[in-house]
Amino acid sequence: MMKHRIYIVGMGPGREDMMTGEAIVALEQAEVIIGYPVYLKLLGERFVGKEFLSTPMKQEVTRCRMAFEEAEKGKKVALICSGDAGIYGLASLMYELLSEYGDCELSVIPGITAANSGAAVLGAPLNHDFCVISLSDLLTPWERIEKRLRMAAEGDFVIAIYNPSSHKRRDYLQKACDILLEIIEPERPCGYVENIGRDQTSYGVCSLKQLRDTEVNMFTTVYIGNSTSYVVDGHLVTKRGYQL
Amino acid sequence: MMKHRIYIVGMGPGREDMMTGEAIVALEQAEVIIGYPVYLKLLGERFVGKEFLSTPMKQEVTRCRMAFEEAEKGKKVALICSGDAGIYGLASLMYELLSEYGDCELSVIPGITAANSGAAVLGAPLNHDFCVISLSDLLTPWERIEKRLRMAAEGDFVIAIYNPSSHKRRDYLQKACDILLEIIEPERPCGYVENIGRDQTSYGVCSLKQLRDTEVNMFTTVYIGNSTSYVVDGHLVTKRGYQL
Repeated sequence: MMKHRIYIVGMGPGREDMMTGEAIVALEQAEVIIGYPVYLKLLGERFVGKEFLSTPMKQEVTRCRMAFEEAEKGKKVALICSGDAGIYGLASLMYELLSEYGDCELSVIPGITAANSGAAVLGAPLNHDFCVISLSDLLTPWERIEKRLRMAAEGDFVIAIYNPSSHKRRDYLQKACDILLEIIEPERPCGYVENIGRDQTSYGVCSLKQLRDTEVNMFTTVYIGNSTSYVVDGHLVTKRGYQL
Repeated sequence: MMKHRIYIVGMGPGREDMMTGEAIVALEQAEVIIGYPVYLKLLGERFVGKEFLSTPMKQEVTRCRMAFEEAEKGKKVALICSGDAGIYGLASLMYELLSEYGDCELSVIPGITAANSGAAVLGAPLNHDFCVISLSDLLTPWERIEKRLRMAAEGDFVIAIYNPSSHKRRDYLQKACDILLEIIEPERPCGYVENIGRDQTSYGVCSLKQLRDTEVNMFTTVYIGNSTSYVVDGHLVTKRGYQL
């Protein structure tokens, strides 16, 4: 029997021209598009006529089960995630649930994740070895996040930080910077980008010490440079090591 | 005076439908497209009529200067890189040279980097905090790479490895695995993907111990799972932490 193939689609930061061709095709061919309401709205009017289904935040397990259940009805299903579906997205949860739905199979379609799209706005901060760390402790113990921050700093990685703040975690970026400041000098060049690929994108560069006291929100991606990073003309750049 | 804007374009893994809309537009609007010969060839016949310029490998500085010089002649220039131009690409080198060309400015257009596109093929290995490390010691001292491998393992990051091998560095993945095996158990699930988004994409999953003796090449991206990664149905998946 042919299995029902569910497409797990990374839509990038939100703007349609930052999606890949294969992501657009997967959504065009879907009968049902499932996602978090904000992202469905960002898809705009392009996909009129599709059935749109969603669940609120923190109901990701229900949302994924919905995708399997719709697929089992014989419908063509695309599950959308912002950025890349495999980076803090729902791809791994779908694989975790897959064994319960024996007649389904999965295809992940990659998208531009915030680390990459924000880096392009800021200049070239990720142009050497880097780490991506989420400060959200909803699903991860804070001690593990703290350990990773320390190891990233010790390894002289560039660090991209996701979820640096939220209503309930207003001081998390401050806490993270305090840990990094035990290892990294206060003058280390850093940067941040807000609302990447949406209206009112804004960005800035600053020192690690200044970053500690910078107000950010859940739509901000934060960058801590490595020992070769520098600021040129308002842009954050990490050297690759070429001899000039 | 209006400055000459140079677009530094990430073309993704190679297939046109894995490029973003804005990357395609930047190439369509360019009069001159500059890149490494292999990538120019991958663009295929879509951009017939453009002027194509290239320099061989290890002549990246010359290639970047060529972009500035063409732009200064008043031509619309796009410099292409595989994957994301800001991830081991030429974006940072362009920023380093920018001050020498005062009437030019830069825009980086992000693309799907191999870490993301390979992860989508393998399953969902990067679905939690991760590091990206290149094993190429052409521009980076090996000791720094070694330190980063250790810190990534200590921090329980998923690790994506670029440039795991080349003609002159046949045993580098082996050396890297030996370092990781000092910290990580030999049974840790790993994976690799070759020729992502091109003909004959292949992938596999294995243990860290098996990875040590796996033959890879410069077109392979390698993944080392974290302590929650597991293999399901031939796919490598890292748990995000949802309660099922």
